[in-house]
Amino acid sequence: MAAAVVRRGAAGWRRWHGRVMVCSRAMASKTPVGFIGLGNMGNPMAKNLVKHGYPVIAYDVFPEACKEFQDLGAQVTDSPADVAEKADRIITMLPSSPNAIEVYTGANGILKKVKKGSLLIDSSTIDPAVSKELAKAVEKMGAVFMDAPVSGGVGAARAGNLTFMVGGVEQEFDAAKELLTCMGSNVVYCGEVGTGQAAKICNNMLLAISMIGTAEAMNLGIRLGLDPKLLAKILNMSSGRCWSSDTYNPVPGVMEGVPSANNYQGGFGTTLMAKDLGLAQISATNTKTPVPLGSQAHQIYRMMCAKGYALKDFSAVFQFLREEETL
Amino acid sequence: MAAAVVRRGAAGWRRWHGRVMVCSRAMASKTPVGFIGLGNMGNPMAKNLVKHGYPVIAYDVFPEACKEFQDLGAQVTDSPADVAEKADRIITMLPSSPNAIEVYTGANGILKKVKKGSLLIDSSTIDPAVSKELAKAVEKMGAVFMDAPVSGGVGAARAGNLTFMVGGVEQEFDAAKELLTCMGSNVVYCGEVGTGQAAKICNNMLLAISMIGTAEAMNLGIRLGLDPKLLAKILNMSSGRCWSSDTYNPVPGVMEGVPSANNYQGGFGTTLMAKDLGLAQISATNTKTPVPLGSQAHQIYRMMCAKGYALKDFSAVFQFLREEETL
Amino acid sequence: MAAAVVRRGAAGWRRWHGRVMVCSRAMASKTPVGFIGLGNMGNPMAKNLVKHGYPVIAYDVFPEACKEFQDLGAQVTDSPADVAEKADRIITMLPSSPNAIEVYTGANGILKKVKKGSLLIDSSTIDPAVSKELAKAVEKMGAVFMDAPVSGGVGAARAGNLTFMVGGVEQEFDAAKELLTCMGSNVVYCGEVGTGQAAKICNNMLLAISMIGTAEAMNLGIRLGLDPKLLAKILNMSSGRCWSSDTYNPVPGVMEGVPSANNYQGGFGTTLMAKDLGLAQISATNTKTPVPLGSQAHQIYRMMCAKGYALKDFSAVFQFLREEETL
Amino acid sequence: MAAAVVRRGAAGWRRWHGRVMVCSRAMASKTPVGFIGLGNMGNPMAKNLVKHGYPVIAYDVFPEACKEFQDLGAQVTDSPADVAEKADRIITMLPSSPNAIEVYTGANGILKKVKKGSLLIDSSTIDPAVSKELAKAVEKMGAVFMDAPVSGGVGAARAGNLTFMVGGVEQEFDAAKELLTCMGSNVVYCGEVGTGQAAKICNNMLLAISMIGTAEAMNLGIRLGLDPKLLAKILNMSSGRCWSSDTYNPVPGVMEGVPSANNYQGGFGTTLMAKDLGLAQISATNTKTPVPLGSQAHQIYRMMCAKGYALKDFSAVFQFLREEETL
Repeated sequence: MAAAVVRRGAAGWRRWHGRVMVCSRAMASKTPVGFIGLGNMGNPMAKNLVKHGYPVIAYDVFPEACKEFQDLGAQVTDSPADVAEKADRIITMLPSSPNAIEVYTGANGILKKVKKGSLLIDSSTIDPAVSKELAKAVEKMGAVFMDAPVSGGVGAARAGNLTFMVGGVEQEFDAAKELLTCMGSNVVYCGEVGTGQAAKICNNMLLAISMIGTAEAMNLGIRLGLDPKLLAKILNMSSGRCWSSDTYNPVPGVMEGVPSANNYQGGFGTTLMAKDLGLAQISATNTKTPVPLGSQAHQIYRMMCAKGYALKDFSAVFQFLREEETL
Repeated sequence: MAAAVVRRGAAGWRRWHGRVMVCSRAMASKTPVGFIGLGNMGNPMAKNLVKHGYPVIAYDVFPEACKEFQDLGAQVTDSPADVAEKADRIITMLPSSPNAIEVYTGANGILKKVKKGSLLIDSSTIDPAVSKELAKAVEKMGAVFMDAPVSGGVGAARAGNLTFMVGGVEQEFDAAKELLTCMGSNVVYCGEVGTGQAAKICNNMLLAISMIGTAEAMNLGIRLGLDPKLLAKILNMSSGRCWSSDTYNPVPGVMEGVPSANNYQGGFGTTLMAKDLGLAQISATNTKTPVPLGSQAHQIYRMMCAKGYALKDFSAVFQFLREEETL
Repeated sequence: MAAAVVRRGAAGWRRWHGRVMVCSRAMASKTPVGFIGLGNMGNPMAKNLVKHGYPVIAYDVFPEACKEFQDLGAQVTDSPADVAEKADRIITMLPSSPNAIEVYTGANGILKKVKKGSLLIDSSTIDPAVSKELAKAVEKMGAVFMDAPVSGGVGAARAGNLTFMVGGVEQEFDAAKELLTCMGSNVVYCGEVGTGQAAKICNNMLLAISMIGTAEAMNLGIRLGLDPKLLAKILNMSSGRCWSSDTYNPVPGVMEGVPSANNYQGGFGTTLMAKDLGLAQISATNTKTPVPLGSQAHQIYRMMCAKGYALKDFSAVFQFLREEETL
Repeated sequence: MAAAVVRRGAAGWRRWHGRVMVCSRAMASKTPVGFIGLGNMGNPMAKNLVKHGYPVIAYDVFPEACKEFQDLGAQVTDSPADVAEKADRIITMLPSSPNAIEVYTGANGILKKVKKGSLLIDSSTIDPAVSKELAKAVEKMGAVFMDAPVSGGVGAARAGNLTFMVGGVEQEFDAAKELLTCMGSNVVYCGEVGTGQAAKICNNMLLAISMIGTAEAMNLGIRLGLDPKLLAKILNMSSGRCWSSDTYNPVPGVMEGVPSANNYQGGFGTTLMAKDLGLAQISATNTKTPVPLGSQAHQIYRMMCAKGYALKDFSAVFQFLREEETL
């Protein structure tokens, strides 16, 4: 607790207005923030921290990913342990559960040199059971762990309007929010450790199901003679309405400014959706929760990955289902 | 064509304001309208026609269903053929494809005595391929057929705010709309014959998929430690948002005024959803359209029907999936 | 009944040895047999009738399909009705339910000129509900209808060792068997009209499920480090054993003389399996029978058809699932 | 290697006849064998070791499970570590991956006191990835790990005719086989560590799929009018044939001596099948292998567990699907 007080001391006098914190860019006394994982998402996120005036201590397994940050004035280190030695607030953004385990508990992991009272925020999307394990290990060292996976892609990361779903001890939420609001416009407290991951996984599972459902319904309707735009309009004023039908319609020609209008370029890749559905599947298996459509959605995105759709936006499931039989 | 002109003559001088037609209740000269099928839905629909001043010629296979209409001043007949003899505008509201085929083409069916130029509107939810067959048979007799299935349940039928999705020749749409606006607040033209059915089937298939998906996501989230209300809120501000999550949430305690708040009483019965999904399945099979989640949704509602859920609202799939394992 | 007696008179003196009838090729007095539908399957079937000494009255919508039979001494006619005029035993072999309906009840259909007491055997694979409808229509004309779909492909048709699954009145079975044994080595009586179709549909649905299951299990095992031949051996001595694993293994290199050993050429085409699964789906929908894996198998074969697998053997589902993800 | 030589010294002079080893029951000099996990399966397995003259060193988390073995002359210990101190050959039979991890790597786990050259055989059914992890940890201590899950239930365990599927270094297989043949009639070498688990998981996944498929096909056939025994006979002589149809038919009245003939008592419980399918799912997710029917089978058995079928034999899926709709 004392640790929390000390840490929060740095941020204590700041004010909150509504959901969005006013980050005082001019503040000279900001303490350093560690950032581990400077990939497609981590790179723009860390840059936003820099923009908000935080001295960043950076690390990535690929040294070249750090170079850019060196130029921006960040301090580049040799290992997660080194980051932990130099910063008592660290954000991690890693591609998978094994990577997260390695970065936290590996031979040169954060826990080797983490300071008491440190705040460790993991924004990776991983198995919530792993988040809980990491939290236990972190807690044993007298530090605090929160899971804070993001919603929104590279564009939102650049624009600083990601959504963070945060799990962990509630009294530490404000301290986490101070940093996260520099990178996102929405920071939602979800409950104890792991619930951030849970919220993200559940949302993406429902998203995948609705998207495939929208693709099936649009495709069937078109084959039955309906005009796609008219069908989308009917669905959107009826009980079939969903984000996939009214905001991100998968049928080319129905909406503008969405991946389906651009040959399914950009957006949220099929391979990433398959990964999140795999996490949902593992969580469901571990909790003995039946997810008949969620597991089928997982299989469909898995098959799409093997049929050349891995890097296309996940709304390309329309195209996948649309293909005509040929003899 | 001449027939259409004659028929439209009766309605020609009326005015349209936006989408909703002003039905002139005082009009003395309204010609009779036939109504076949006075069940749960047909009964309040036909009553709304009576309320709007239309002389109704009624028929139902169960004579007792007609009695009430006799008291309301409607003329009750002995067969669909008799209805066709006495009215040149007929609405049919029947439970299934075979019933519709019988009522139109059976030994005492409408087509035995249909007058040239008659307008036959089928509001049953049936296989669009059957609608097309009926349309052909009707056309051969010099009459016009439109499919106009409804969205909205018994409550909406009583209140006169059903949605009609209408398929058929476009120049006949206004004539159909004159009658349908007496029973519904939304009358949407969908395209050629069968597209009304297609629109309804596609919407309900997507609805079923989204509902099961919502139930799965909510159930998984709860088992992973999330508060249901909070999870619903997160989904509804994210890409998982759908009508089933934001308007008709299947989890008891999340919303008021929906079937999940009332032990899944009322609403849209699981057995009816299973029927509509069966139609979607048949249409998909006939058009060789892959509907992997639609077919799985069909199977789930089919299993629920056999597990005691037939008459519960279709959002009870949450309860079905939620049950805990017991040894 | 008299008709049956008369007809059976021709075959009455013959003997049965076990399941296979001794067809008396030398018999001079054989009465003509009609054959409608001379496609991939019908062609070799009809030829086997000719070989067994039956005068064949032939018809096909494509006149060129009949030419070969003219050369063989068969009489070629202009319509199904003409066949019915000239033969009181007719076999039909058609691609789908609508074709069968047309050939029996169409403007120039069999029923226009069918003689009382005729025996009409439909070897098409169609919806059992359609078989029942046809049987009723045939019965009204005083004739007998049996459904007798086949198992076995073009090779078995040529070799005369198809399996026939026969539904219809039991006392007519022997008369049907007289003809069917000329074309198949196995003629099984299944029960009332429609049960022949039912047996075939159920077998093929289980076959499709087992084949996909075998492909999934083999693929997963291989990815987990097992040798395919060893895994097949283990499955085949264990409870996973099935026809698809021990007789028709879908993994190249495991068995010889099966389509998987020959780039999935020959065998039973994916598009045909998709068709049979569509029939199973329709029967299941109509009888409200849950078939969760059967419906999923249908969807998988449907998707394969659209991905270039339509003409490959249905065991190519292994290849379909095996493809690796590529970025 | 030296360790292996020493250990094999004890068994070296014995002979192998075909697949089944002649266990020399009279041998006085047998060295002790540890056995950890004396549950439903472990109990009869360990007894068979005792019967074959092996001094058994026993441990179970539930002390009462050990009492019986004390009476049989086995030495009961306080922890897995104690077993490892007293025996250089240990068999473990545990309910799940976490249990196995605890028994091997926990605070009082085997690895705390394992002797160099020890042979550790894990007969639990667990995630093959966990088997590989355990193997690595064991190897670091200079000992040998093999995974050897079993096929066959409690009855087979009692009768000593289980099937063992063994993964691990090939030159250690004979040493493992010496022990395993005392408990099973079939000991199959599958390949490197983890392939024993892989073989079991793949077999059971295919089994589950075939069983559900058989139940669907039988149920559909019955509803379409086929006699169940006749349908089973037709399937078994056709391409739908599988172990579930010809050896373990799920339809009451079709076969004798199977769980379906005894209200689905005994056999292989639905909850155990659900567990194995969960492992298959996790393996498939980790290797990015599409298993559309395997994942659906998992969901179906998961739902059955929540509907009161957890302890019934897994062939009860017929009963689950068979239930009629009731209004």
